[in-house]
Amino acid sequence: MFKQQRVVIENMTPQLHCGAFFIKRVVGESVEVKTDVLGDGHDVIQAELQFKHEKDKNFSAQRMSPLVNDAYTASFTVEKQGYYFYRISAWVDHALNWQHGIEAKIKDGQHVKSELLDGVQYLNYIVKKVKGTEKSYVEGLISDFGNEKTYDSAIKEAVSEKLHHLFLKYPQRILSNFSEELSVYVDRKKASFSTWYEFFPRSSSPEPNKHGTFKDCERLLERIMDMGFDTIYFPPIHPIGEVNRKGRNNVVQAKEGDSGVPWAIGSHLGGHKSIHPELGTEEDFGRLVKKANKLGMEIALDLAFQAAPDHPYISTNPEWFRKRPDGTMQYAENPPKKYQDIVNFYFESPAYKELWKELLDVTLHWIGFGVKIFRVDNPHTKPYYFWNWLITEVKKKHPDVLFLAEAFSRPRVMQQLAKQGFSQSYTYFTWRVHKHEIIDYMVELTQSEMREYYRPNFWPNTPDINPYHLQGSNDAMHIIRYALAATLSGNIGIYGPVFEYMVTEALPGKEEYLDCEKYEVRNWDWSKENKLTHVITKLNQARKDHPALQQTNNIRFCHIENDRLMAFYKWNDSRDDQVLVIISLDPYYSQQGMVQLPLAEMGIHQGHEMTMHDLVTDSGYLWYDEWNYVELHPALPFHLFQINL
Amino acid sequence: MFKQQRVVIENMTPQLHCGAFFIKRVVGESVEVKTDVLGDGHDVIQAELQFKHEKDKNFSAQRMSPLVNDAYTASFTVEKQGYYFYRISAWVDHALNWQHGIEAKIKDGQHVKSELLDGVQYLNYIVKKVKGTEKSYVEGLISDFGNEKTYDSAIKEAVSEKLHHLFLKYPQRILSNFSEELSVYVDRKKASFSTWYEFFPRSSSPEPNKHGTFKDCERLLERIMDMGFDTIYFPPIHPIGEVNRKGRNNVVQAKEGDSGVPWAIGSHLGGHKSIHPELGTEEDFGRLVKKANKLGMEIALDLAFQAAPDHPYISTNPEWFRKRPDGTMQYAENPPKKYQDIVNFYFESPAYKELWKELLDVTLHWIGFGVKIFRVDNPHTKPYYFWNWLITEVKKKHPDVLFLAEAFSRPRVMQQLAKQGFSQSYTYFTWRVHKHEIIDYMVELTQSEMREYYRPNFWPNTPDINPYHLQGSNDAMHIIRYALAATLSGNIGIYGPVFEYMVTEALPGKEEYLDCEKYEVRNWDWSKENKLTHVITKLNQARKDHPALQQTNNIRFCHIENDRLMAFYKWNDSRDDQVLVIISLDPYYSQQGMVQLPLAEMGIHQGHEMTMHDLVTDSGYLWYDEWNYVELHPALPFHLFQINL
Repeated sequence: MFKQQRVVIENMTPQLHCGAFFIKRVVGESVEVKTDVLGDGHDVIQAELQFKHEKDKNFSAQRMSPLVNDAYTASFTVEKQGYYFYRISAWVDHALNWQHGIEAKIKDGQHVKSELLDGVQYLNYIVKKVKGTEKSYVEGLISDFGNEKTYDSAIKEAVSEKLHHLFLKYPQRILSNFSEELSVYVDRKKASFSTWYEFFPRSSSPEPNKHGTFKDCERLLERIMDMGFDTIYFPPIHPIGEVNRKGRNNVVQAKEGDSGVPWAIGSHLGGHKSIHPELGTEEDFGRLVKKANKLGMEIALDLAFQAAPDHPYISTNPEWFRKRPDGTMQYAENPPKKYQDIVNFYFESPAYKELWKELLDVTLHWIGFGVKIFRVDNPHTKPYYFWNWLITEVKKKHPDVLFLAEAFSRPRVMQQLAKQGFSQSYTYFTWRVHKHEIIDYMVELTQSEMREYYRPNFWPNTPDINPYHLQGSNDAMHIIRYALAATLSGNIGIYGPVFEYMVTEALPGKEEYLDCEKYEVRNWDWSKENKLTHVITKLNQARKDHPALQQTNNIRFCHIENDRLMAFYKWNDSRDDQVLVIISLDPYYSQQGMVQLPLAEMGIHQGHEMTMHDLVTDSGYLWYDEWNYVELHPALPFHLFQINL
Repeated sequence: MFKQQRVVIENMTPQLHCGAFFIKRVVGESVEVKTDVLGDGHDVIQAELQFKHEKDKNFSAQRMSPLVNDAYTASFTVEKQGYYFYRISAWVDHALNWQHGIEAKIKDGQHVKSELLDGVQYLNYIVKKVKGTEKSYVEGLISDFGNEKTYDSAIKEAVSEKLHHLFLKYPQRILSNFSEELSVYVDRKKASFSTWYEFFPRSSSPEPNKHGTFKDCERLLERIMDMGFDTIYFPPIHPIGEVNRKGRNNVVQAKEGDSGVPWAIGSHLGGHKSIHPELGTEEDFGRLVKKANKLGMEIALDLAFQAAPDHPYISTNPEWFRKRPDGTMQYAENPPKKYQDIVNFYFESPAYKELWKELLDVTLHWIGFGVKIFRVDNPHTKPYYFWNWLITEVKKKHPDVLFLAEAFSRPRVMQQLAKQGFSQSYTYFTWRVHKHEIIDYMVELTQSEMREYYRPNFWPNTPDINPYHLQGSNDAMHIIRYALAATLSGNIGIYGPVFEYMVTEALPGKEEYLDCEKYEVRNWDWSKENKLTHVITKLNQARKDHPALQQTNNIRFCHIENDRLMAFYKWNDSRDDQVLVIISLDPYYSQQGMVQLPLAEMGIHQGHEMTMHDLVTDSGYLWYDEWNYVELHPALPFHLFQINL
């Protein structure tokens, strides 16, 4: 193939799997693009980053700066939600090359009459593009370059900054080459900064042994808002299957009166588009959503795409389920385990398109109530391409809608869901306890390719996971886990009352809660507040006030000479907000250590005065040195310092 | 887009820039393919590597083995020259999944009547594919699986290895997915194993002060063959420009009688398709090529695509050159330097297609004489895509033809030429002297992506490069440099007589030879032999005898506790040939050290008897330990051990 271009463009980043997936950003973030650009020979090369929003007609452009080893870089900021496209264009810049050459020859003392004449062709190109003073300047040069009498001023102008800028401004892109076009999807800010509080609406009643309602939930909104949460997540709110219903503590047979598992969706009372009658009506739910929104919060719902054996779909759409040759229903199983209260959708069904459309319709149904955030249950047990389709379809009309992937699975599986479009993902943070584990994991999340597409959401606990380190633990441990989550990650969440009230009893030998709310209605004294409530509130407030804490990727761990102390520095892109976090991982004893500040990264030298303002205690310290002594006690096992320089 | 597949395939390697370039192999080598394959849920996945030669109708297949983290691997061997294509197919294997499930349930003591019935569908698929005993076996199972009376034998067969193998042999690829299709180009073996001897044919005369001829060259063939070289490379053999001809030692003006630079091609005597008359006739050249071939050697020619100012092209095809506005010729330059004896082709010419075709024609012209190897001069000063086109066009009809890229340029530039199609490339070996430099460079070449496309050719010297460490150096240093090249790299070469006779005088302060043959005819007493001749011969013989030395990538460096001693282990793919090389980098003093053998990689334990047979001295040592004492003296500063286990 005859391809006359002289410039090669390759190794463009960020790029996921040859452009098979978009990278992700939220409004206001920047995309820093790097690429290798090579020309043959010694000619001057120019590279340009071109980008546009999906609704823009034309690309905007940004000239790229050279780095080492034939690499170039430039960045652009995404201002609007939706897709942006970006690509590179590069060319041999003959005008700049000419200027570079004539400059070297003039310095070498050569006579450049012929070179000046040669330069006229580049001026002739520019003169058609310019107006006013620029035009008269260029016209003057054209005349001078061909005139022996003005040789001295001609060579002065030939190498001038002024001419250089004109060449940069009006490039003649001879044989320019283009990279592939890549895309970034831009979400609203909440995709990367959110603070979740999970509770079971059926446990919201102030009266013991009574099934909670949406109206009870309404009364809890202000309390949760006051603590600084912005997202309230409800497990499924639909009718619960009655066939093969499970009992308390996950026993196989429910007893009379057991309320069942909200994830076993569907009964004669309705399916995925219905509300469990004991919770209230559609009107109640609509009012709750509106009231939460008014208070600056959102209600997140659960998308659990599976059915109880008595779900209406099973009779209305039997083609969406798999029957065995003997006619029995194929329940969910992971042999030898059987989950007889659950029937999975049969995604290999010939009627899969209708199934997909119905599941989309379920999602749109709740969007109709104003719900814009979904926590998706076990997405990794449904096909990856289905999620890609569903999320894409929803976002076409509802770009505000966000999806959190609840997959506690293998690394590649969790990554794949994020690539296919999930806005946020659960993480292994729940089990990362030791300093080196936490640092390794954060480095993976923030310095590998994952930073481009995987938005972590850090949860110390969930209704499914009562991790060993929380079982029987004290308030210091709870503070440590919340402080870690709140400062390490832009997105965080807790399974609320159980965490806040430090209910840590487990099924023996398992990371599961005793008397777990998944299997029964609980009652909480929501009027209670404790030290944890206070610390959570302070941390959430700090997160609201500090852009450095509203993102995940800008983090550097600091040396601190104690394996039970962790320290890290975070900042926002403009670096007008900088924080230093120091956390003790020891819930029982005081820990001391010397922390090393990354002065070079902070842009200061040893001796510079730093006011370290603790955002939880409001106390302050004056530091001047690279190494600083810190001591933390389990009573308040962390510092969250705002750094004032 | 509705995409029902349940399996995702990604991160397939080896892969260059999303398949933009082929990877490279030589006949008999293998391609080890890795990929990530993910299914949703817990179902059993199967992945298959599919590959075919460009002339094959159908793909061959190889089931892949699982590694950690959802990765799979398999490999295939390339048997023929030309392109091979490879891709992955993967699917949820319902039959294997069924077997896996029923096995777990049986172990758990469950009754599996319904599961057996379920399994019949997989048997029904297979029964159509099989014949003879396989058929009667499957028919028996179909009957047993549905029959309560044969339940015991049915569950025994359901989990049997026999059935497992049938499922593997006759997979039902429901909703199987495919990766992209990638390609590998397979060259003849010489692409990765060659031993070059460069000399100027004009310096081949046995009589002093006489211009050498192809007939003189014929008389040297046996000598070079006896030393073990297989490729004789000539600088350009064409008429040399007379206009602006350069003089001895690169002075700008030649004196009367100066013979000029062979790379300044073209005069009234002819251009790129002509032979310099003093060298002989086309018949002479043809005979030389044939005689070399008969002796098992090849003649490699130089492709130097540039013209002297009096090249015939300049008048016949002025459109292929750039003139300045004042009508003067645009000579080659790198401002402020000017190369007035050289005019570059103007690759941006509107007539570029005709230019490309003519340069292809030049190449084909010499292929017509039986030349199958070209050393390409300064390829990085011509467009990358031009080379891709030219090499592709040549190989379509002449797959045996090989191209060595003479670009001593920046890393990305040298890599790009290799990606675009060059069969071999010069390297930075010429300047890598210290142990850590050599190891770092070898690791980059053999353990990065470069191993897939960059075939290094290690040259201790060239007519252009008389490196500082060789200037004024002794015979030990020459042995060290040759031994390093010969054992580290499959492809090697020397600028012959100057290296062999240790002519090391340089232009003061430069890495250039004094009285360099580029600018004048030299005479050598080709009857001379010395210690270096002997060692080179021994090393070349070892290379011919040992497949481990005929490739570059299978190398592991060994710990050796002395910074002036290097040790490395090499092997061929089947590991029936293994060598250990120990080289002292000190040309003046003895060096001692303990070398650690990679016993695990060699597949043996401490205490195993190893006969270390030195291929140069023919002496032997018995080693039993992981750590072994070695001492090397400048008289013979290396061991090349064949390892016999």
